[in-house]
Amino acid sequence: MPDPSLLETFPTPARHPIVIEHIAEEFTSQCPVTGHPDFGVITLRYQPAPPDSPNGGGCVELKSLKLYYQSFRTEGIFYEAVTDRIRDDLVALMKPVWLQIITSWRGRGGIRSVIRADYGDVPPEYRAR
Amino acid sequence: MPDPSLLETFPTPARHPIVIEHIAEEFTSQCPVTGHPDFGVITLRYQPAPPDSPNGGGCVELKSLKLYYQSFRTEGIFYEAVTDRIRDDLVALMKPVWLQIITSWRGRGGIRSVIRADYGDVPPEYRAR
Amino acid sequence: MPDPSLLETFPTPARHPIVIEHIAEEFTSQCPVTGHPDFGVITLRYQPAPPDSPNGGGCVELKSLKLYYQSFRTEGIFYEAVTDRIRDDLVALMKPVWLQIITSWRGRGGIRSVIRADYGDVPPEYRAR
Amino acid sequence: MPDPSLLETFPTPARHPIVIEHIAEEFTSQCPVTGHPDFGVITLRYQPAPPDSPNGGGCVELKSLKLYYQSFRTEGIFYEAVTDRIRDDLVALMKPVWLQIITSWRGRGGIRSVIRADYGDVPPEYRAR
Amino acid sequence: MPDPSLLETFPTPARHPIVIEHIAEEFTSQCPVTGHPDFGVITLRYQPAPPDSPNGGGCVELKSLKLYYQSFRTEGIFYEAVTDRIRDDLVALMKPVWLQIITSWRGRGGIRSVIRADYGDVPPEYRAR
Amino acid sequence: MPDPSLLETFPTPARHPIVIEHIAEEFTSQCPVTGHPDFGVITLRYQPAPPDSPNGGGCVELKSLKLYYQSFRTEGIFYEAVTDRIRDDLVALMKPVWLQIITSWRGRGGIRSVIRADYGDVPPEYRAR
Amino acid sequence: MPDPSLLETFPTPARHPIVIEHIAEEFTSQCPVTGHPDFGVITLRYQPAPPDSPNGGGCVELKSLKLYYQSFRTEGIFYEAVTDRIRDDLVALMKPVWLQIITSWRGRGGIRSVIRADYGDVPPEYRAR
Amino acid sequence: MPDPSLLETFPTPARHPIVIEHIAEEFTSQCPVTGHPDFGVITLRYQPAPPDSPNGGGCVELKSLKLYYQSFRTEGIFYEAVTDRIRDDLVALMKPVWLQIITSWRGRGGIRSVIRADYGDVPPEYRAR
Amino acid sequence: MPDPSLLETFPTPARHPIVIEHIAEEFTSQCPVTGHPDFGVITLRYQPAPPDSPNGGGCVELKSLKLYYQSFRTEGIFYEAVTDRIRDDLVALMKPVWLQIITSWRGRGGIRSVIRADYGDVPPEYRAR
Amino acid sequence: MPDPSLLETFPTPARHPIVIEHIAEEFTSQCPVTGHPDFGVITLRYQPAPPDSPNGGGCVELKSLKLYYQSFRTEGIFYEAVTDRIRDDLVALMKPVWLQIITSWRGRGGIRSVIRADYGDVPPEYRAR
Repeated sequence: MPDPSLLETFPTPARHPIVIEHIAEEFTSQCPVTGHPDFGVITLRYQPAPPDSPNGGGCVELKSLKLYYQSFRTEGIFYEAVTDRIRDDLVALMKPVWLQIITSWRGRGGIRSVIRADYGDVPPEYRAR
Repeated sequence: MPDPSLLETFPTPARHPIVIEHIAEEFTSQCPVTGHPDFGVITLRYQPAPPDSPNGGGCVELKSLKLYYQSFRTEGIFYEAVTDRIRDDLVALMKPVWLQIITSWRGRGGIRSVIRADYGDVPPEYRAR
Repeated sequence: MPDPSLLETFPTPARHPIVIEHIAEEFTSQCPVTGHPDFGVITLRYQPAPPDSPNGGGCVELKSLKLYYQSFRTEGIFYEAVTDRIRDDLVALMKPVWLQIITSWRGRGGIRSVIRADYGDVPPEYRAR
Repeated sequence: MPDPSLLETFPTPARHPIVIEHIAEEFTSQCPVTGHPDFGVITLRYQPAPPDSPNGGGCVELKSLKLYYQSFRTEGIFYEAVTDRIRDDLVALMKPVWLQIITSWRGRGGIRSVIRADYGDVPPEYRAR
Repeated sequence: MPDPSLLETFPTPARHPIVIEHIAEEFTSQCPVTGHPDFGVITLRYQPAPPDSPNGGGCVELKSLKLYYQSFRTEGIFYEAVTDRIRDDLVALMKPVWLQIITSWRGRGGIRSVIRADYGDVPPEYRAR
Repeated sequence: MPDPSLLETFPTPARHPIVIEHIAEEFTSQCPVTGHPDFGVITLRYQPAPPDSPNGGGCVELKSLKLYYQSFRTEGIFYEAVTDRIRDDLVALMKPVWLQIITSWRGRGGIRSVIRADYGDVPPEYRAR
Repeated sequence: MPDPSLLETFPTPARHPIVIEHIAEEFTSQCPVTGHPDFGVITLRYQPAPPDSPNGGGCVELKSLKLYYQSFRTEGIFYEAVTDRIRDDLVALMKPVWLQIITSWRGRGGIRSVIRADYGDVPPEYRAR
Repeated sequence: MPDPSLLETFPTPARHPIVIEHIAEEFTSQCPVTGHPDFGVITLRYQPAPPDSPNGGGCVELKSLKLYYQSFRTEGIFYEAVTDRIRDDLVALMKPVWLQIITSWRGRGGIRSVIRADYGDVPPEYRAR
Repeated sequence: MPDPSLLETFPTPARHPIVIEHIAEEFTSQCPVTGHPDFGVITLRYQPAPPDSPNGGGCVELKSLKLYYQSFRTEGIFYEAVTDRIRDDLVALMKPVWLQIITSWRGRGGIRSVIRADYGDVPPEYRAR
Repeated sequence: MPDPSLLETFPTPARHPIVIEHIAEEFTSQCPVTGHPDFGVITLRYQPAPPDSPNGGGCVELKSLKLYYQSFRTEGIFYEAVTDRIRDDLVALMKPVWLQIITSWRGRGGIRSVIRADYGDVPPEYRAR
């Protein structure tokens, strides 16, 4: 089940603002109703807090992010809840200036879905898919 | 014929705003004049109402959406009317913050068409196709 | 239901062998078990009989082919049977030198399918998809 | 020669604003200097007038649009004039809230061209190609 | 773990030879060494036995194939063994004239892999990927 | 109307065999039944006769080919007849070792077509589309 | 060497504003240091002056533009200078409302380049590449 | 190791503002933890200072940029630090009006990354990837 | 420098013939003349020896293959020699039934290259790129 | 003008047969009639002679090939003659086992061309484009 304790951070190396994007193309969870697997692409975008903020401008460490995503593998959970959950876990971890999660799903029955959840003041250029 | 009573909702799982997009690539209705089939892709985008709104921030359930779309299969109806009808049925169902329907048709006689219908204050990044 | 009586032919205009390919990208039938619609692309390839053959080297007329394909719209029928049925109906109609039907389906549950049925001595260059 | 009398309208079926886009991929006219054929794609986008406007919020009927475009087939006319002429004819026909014509040409001598003509207050999201 | 008892067949509907291809784009298993998930596309191609053969020319039923593939989800198994295993299970089930499995993997460390396993006399046009 | 007298040749510059392919992407003729325009791509492939053959191993001159194709602009003629006609006219002009015409049409009513006509012993690698 | 005297204009045929874009995909000049050829795509976009302006709202004539571009063929000149030079020559010729030149180069040593030069108040939708 | 002393400039040839973009598709550095190579695409965009500024509106010379990028080949350095370092080195070199570095990495373990670092007032049209 | 001692094998898990393909998209070596880096994609295809052969039908282990490829990172070596060397090292390691190496290089000075080296009787369907 | 004296060779490094392909995407010559530039892609494929042949199994050196291709820049020459000339010059230089030249041209007046010239016994898998 989703395990945010797997997540680790490192302090931002950048004195000036940067934007970081991690695109995980191999995400899978399960439909809570049928138990069938769901397959999606999870895009995370965020601006880390400044290096002099309390958590040093924490950036999520890539390998820990992979393991956290893998912890959804046997979880029965809806698209919308996956998206909301990842946003909340990563915001709690990093306290970033802003953060965005976009989940894009292969779909079922001829319908594919894209869910977007923002935190903070996402700049206009990242608001559209 | 189009049957909105097929549509069901579930309450939004998100405390913060999210944007949901469902892309149905297997839509078919019929030309009201010739009876020939029309084939299109129906894109629905919306922001559900907040969870503490009267209908709990209703989100349309995916399987019910598929069945609703299938109810157009034997309907003779113009592109513009399909678009308008789906917008009105889904707005009545979900009372979302905003909603957008874009229908993209394979076309006839060398001309293909795209129809867009908005409800509420669609953010700028979703206004363009 | 599939109605081969809709099909019409015209005599081949070519004194020398030609190969004709018609790709119908808007085919739909229904799953005989669930009643859900199936969507596919039907590719027909054939070499008409010579002009001096009994039926004048009949070629299927395009509009009649479209109407024949449309007659599957409310038919509950498996992928394999659609493919086999179209092959048999068109072979009976045209008595071609050779003929090939390839049906390519959007699929269900993450699996998409392609079915191929040949008649006569299909040349090597048309045997692969 | 271009014949706007071929154009017909039907009243908009939508009580709320919609945007309609018709993409004609098979347009051809002739170069007025050399007589050689030109080939282009004509994109029409517009927002019909409201249903309670004098012309009922006229929308151009698709088949009549096709015939109107075909009337350029033997016309010797420059790219810029084609674009301007179609804009003017369709504005006169529909009196829309706004309208846009984009013509994209296969080109000559290694140079391909795109011409855009607007009418009224085209929304920002449709201004770029 | 891989469970071939999930597989079901139906008799071929075709009196003449056909070729059937099922492309499963959502396959996942696990690396037996690291436990990390592997993601691949499994292509199955085969010619069913004739209808008058002992098993009626069995064709694998699509939903049962999906469930069988899902039974690899928690299995630690190498690419080559997945491919070999699926070939053997489906050959035992269907006794087809010929059969081919191609597994294409997203890869690790910058290297992606494709494994092919044939059974019987696969026609030349299906031998290459 | 199709005018083969527009075609001109030049003697092959090659002492050894070469293969020449001209792909005309802007072909248009008219449907003989409805008068509506048809749009296609015409691919010509051939091996010129040797330079010491009676016509010097004639190769069709490009500009004359363009004018010849343009002479179909106002002709009402079926796809199959266009293909057959071009093959015959070019064979008569050049007497090549072999020649192939493939016409690929944008189609009507959701069905697009490809017609192939060969002359002489077309090598295997050019037989498939 | 670049020869702006090759450029010719014709008066704009449009009473209302239009935007004209010419994309030249076959541009070549030479590196002033090594003499090696450079290959690029030159995109010109502009809004002609109104028809009642002193030069009649001059639009650059396409064939003259082609010849002007060809005059760079033997010129040793840097990417940035090509872009700047074309902007200045065309602004001097047409006195347009606004104009934009984007040159996109195939590059050298694994680095490809894009240079943009604007004149006047280029609308936002044309500012990005 | 990264060596900014390799970088050279030349004065901008443009009297009016231009935007320069160099896309280096062959960048490689090493992971500081595992020592494994990382592969990325480095996009540099900037507006040079005006020609009358103290450094003459310095533009980075292409070959020197290539050598500078190559100096990361044996460096163990994180994605974020590469991005930050290149931005700082090029800003110190050119003192441009604004500058942007976007690094796009092939990724590891199914996750690929994009990092963006801006300097100065980057125009809106270059802010999004 | 290229170090074949890094390579390891495991015995083939397949009783019947299989074909294995590994595509390494992140290969880099250096030009022996200029020292500039070269970037390529290395495709390895082979059929392992049968399981009862002396080396158990050895298959190259993926991680060891990655490390072996990385050992070319600081090697000055021509395209043709890279290809030849990898073929020889892997043939010596695995003694496969047949093996093929295709190296595809990003190129220099506008020319990109593809080199192919075979060992044993490569089946026709793998001979072409 | 085409200058084969620019071409240089190096002895093949491979004891076993290899196939070498060089794709030059930046070729330009001139039309001998109009003087307008032609732009094409030149693909060279060959199998060098064995290392113990008189010329050591000569392989054309890449930089010399680039300079040789550049020597066509100001030459007025037809597509067919370019192809024939390059074949003859490279065969004379290398005496390869077999060799193939394919020239693919951007075209004129809506027609683009591909010319192929072989030398020796080109294997079947390289005969088709």
